[in-house]
Amino acid sequence: MKRVSILGSTGSIGVRTLDVIERHPDGFQVVALAAGTKVDLLAEQVLRFRPHLVSVATEEAAKELQRRLPRVPVNILWGEEGLVQVARTEEADLVVSALVGSTGLLPTLAAIRAGKDIALANKEVLVMAGELVTAEARKMGVKILPVDSEHSAIFQCLGHGGRQYLKKIILTASGGPFRTRPKASFASVTPEEALNHPTWNMGRKITIDSATLMNKGLEVIEARWLFDLSLKEIDIIIHPQSIIHSLVEYMDGSILAQLSVTDMRLPILYALSYPKRLESPLPSLDLTTLAALTFEPLDMEKFPCIGYAYEAAEAGGTLPTVLNAANEVAVHLFLERRLGFDEIPLLIRKAMDEHGRRPVRSLEDVLEADREVRQRFTMEYSKQ
Amino acid sequence: MKRVSILGSTGSIGVRTLDVIERHPDGFQVVALAAGTKVDLLAEQVLRFRPHLVSVATEEAAKELQRRLPRVPVNILWGEEGLVQVARTEEADLVVSALVGSTGLLPTLAAIRAGKDIALANKEVLVMAGELVTAEARKMGVKILPVDSEHSAIFQCLGHGGRQYLKKIILTASGGPFRTRPKASFASVTPEEALNHPTWNMGRKITIDSATLMNKGLEVIEARWLFDLSLKEIDIIIHPQSIIHSLVEYMDGSILAQLSVTDMRLPILYALSYPKRLESPLPSLDLTTLAALTFEPLDMEKFPCIGYAYEAAEAGGTLPTVLNAANEVAVHLFLERRLGFDEIPLLIRKAMDEHGRRPVRSLEDVLEADREVRQRFTMEYSKQ
Repeated sequence: MKRVSILGSTGSIGVRTLDVIERHPDGFQVVALAAGTKVDLLAEQVLRFRPHLVSVATEEAAKELQRRLPRVPVNILWGEEGLVQVARTEEADLVVSALVGSTGLLPTLAAIRAGKDIALANKEVLVMAGELVTAEARKMGVKILPVDSEHSAIFQCLGHGGRQYLKKIILTASGGPFRTRPKASFASVTPEEALNHPTWNMGRKITIDSATLMNKGLEVIEARWLFDLSLKEIDIIIHPQSIIHSLVEYMDGSILAQLSVTDMRLPILYALSYPKRLESPLPSLDLTTLAALTFEPLDMEKFPCIGYAYEAAEAGGTLPTVLNAANEVAVHLFLERRLGFDEIPLLIRKAMDEHGRRPVRSLEDVLEADREVRQRFTMEYSKQ
Repeated sequence: MKRVSILGSTGSIGVRTLDVIERHPDGFQVVALAAGTKVDLLAEQVLRFRPHLVSVATEEAAKELQRRLPRVPVNILWGEEGLVQVARTEEADLVVSALVGSTGLLPTLAAIRAGKDIALANKEVLVMAGELVTAEARKMGVKILPVDSEHSAIFQCLGHGGRQYLKKIILTASGGPFRTRPKASFASVTPEEALNHPTWNMGRKITIDSATLMNKGLEVIEARWLFDLSLKEIDIIIHPQSIIHSLVEYMDGSILAQLSVTDMRLPILYALSYPKRLESPLPSLDLTTLAALTFEPLDMEKFPCIGYAYEAAEAGGTLPTVLNAANEVAVHLFLERRLGFDEIPLLIRKAMDEHGRRPVRSLEDVLEADREVRQRFTMEYSKQ
């Protein structure tokens, strides 16, 4: 029985994680949950899974949750301190890190420092502070298990001991909803169009990142830290069907690939059950009913965010943090219709050029760079 | 440095094995070679690789080889006894079993009994006597490493410890040269047409087996013994591009696949280098230049040999030996234009029906069933 805490239990990954846990009552037990302000859903989750501890974003939400759970023995906290308490709650063996964007960094670090294994869905944690986070994980002897379907695929293809014979990894990208749309029309892309992903049903932030292909850039940085790779060892290929989730090429030319239906419950289950596998109630992939599997080269000119991610990763220091913060601001502004789809990469480029590279000596350097970029661009756009 | 003996050094696999060894002079050393009657090629191989021991099929060939190598310090043997000596030569760590058909059984067993690891290309060894051979390998603690591209793929996808979480394996089949040819015209297939395989360049016997799809049937039986599977755990799928060499589906629904260029030197290198991997000079697979990867269900009515193989494997006893012997006779007769392509499955069916299932208590039971089928059908066709 693994005891699990979930950071972000009402989000897309959190809900699917609870679905997986519910189907394996002998394998997992929920001990703590943290969510934002979706009190209705969280109250339901508390009644179904009976965690000892929950946390929400605000004091108001905490009071509202308390009102809905009058006779339930659960400790209700709120705010950043509540998140951190859920992350390091003593009973947990494993913490599912499934918050969105930069908010996950501090609680995930807290979980690592408390010796918890991490099932990582929140890739921004490694994008912002990969060196610090992986060093801390090594020091504490905790495993960071990937939940992203691409990284789960790589992790499975590497198996035990495959890393030393690796030539490169190949991340697959569906290409998003605008793979075949001419770049000239990107200025007129609406949030609704960008949120309509062809192969995956995901949260809003990651769906926009999948439309700009920044998601793949963030995945490059995530993969670099998860598997201790140089950037030259990370390739990207467009695979519109999203059946092959990624591939590993070995030094002898042999390639291993991982395939499955496009359902996040599969990589979640693997991260929870690792190093074992458990039976899944999901339908098998029927190869004979599949469309042909195709591959195309990535168009870096059409989707410049990926190049920026490689550039930030290569430069290191605070630049990946700047890239990530600028992207979060840009996605937010785009969803609020205050920034064009074509302006997302422009904002990121501007942020990187203005900020430049600064060394990361401590977590504070990361947090400061993050704050600086957010303030700078939030201010610029609030003036408009 | 691994010391290697090769049974079948002048055949398709043998020649490629020597090519691999020549490219890795620090990794491997050839200590013994056995071939049939291609004395020219064998003499060249002896001069290039300097084995201590060689064996050929006949006394005449041995004398001819001796004449060509007057001052070379090599011990030259011949016949079945020579094969067995090569198989168990003291200096070898690993024996590449690459003879064609049933002739490989006795020397491969001799190698196992002498404690040599086996790189197995000669699948008929396991088809004829899988239970005996794998029991002997377990007893002696020797590894049987697959050289067949499909089984190498499965072996790589299973990694260390994957077997316990396996749901099924999926062997891919190119479908051979007659995948889209109507069955009604099978009677007019010529040996030249059948020898023209669309994706692989292989020996004659296996190329005909690939045209009847019996090769896939033999692979089912081979896989059963190599990976200790039930027949229900072995699926076959048509994949005309031969890029994915086979797949493993795990109990959670995740599938691992192995891909590479179609070059037998890759699985040979992996079998030789296992558990390590070595750099290969072969070109990488460039996914973006590939045709679309497609899959089709297998047509068991059009290619009945596969059904016969499942049936023989399910029945056990001597029936797989009978299937194999009848197939070898039928392929031989077809290549001599004394049997129609459409009559190959008929001959096999007849042999299985006539012979029935008999228990295998010893190797002698296997050899007797093999002899009986060969005599019976060789006699029948010599009368014509």
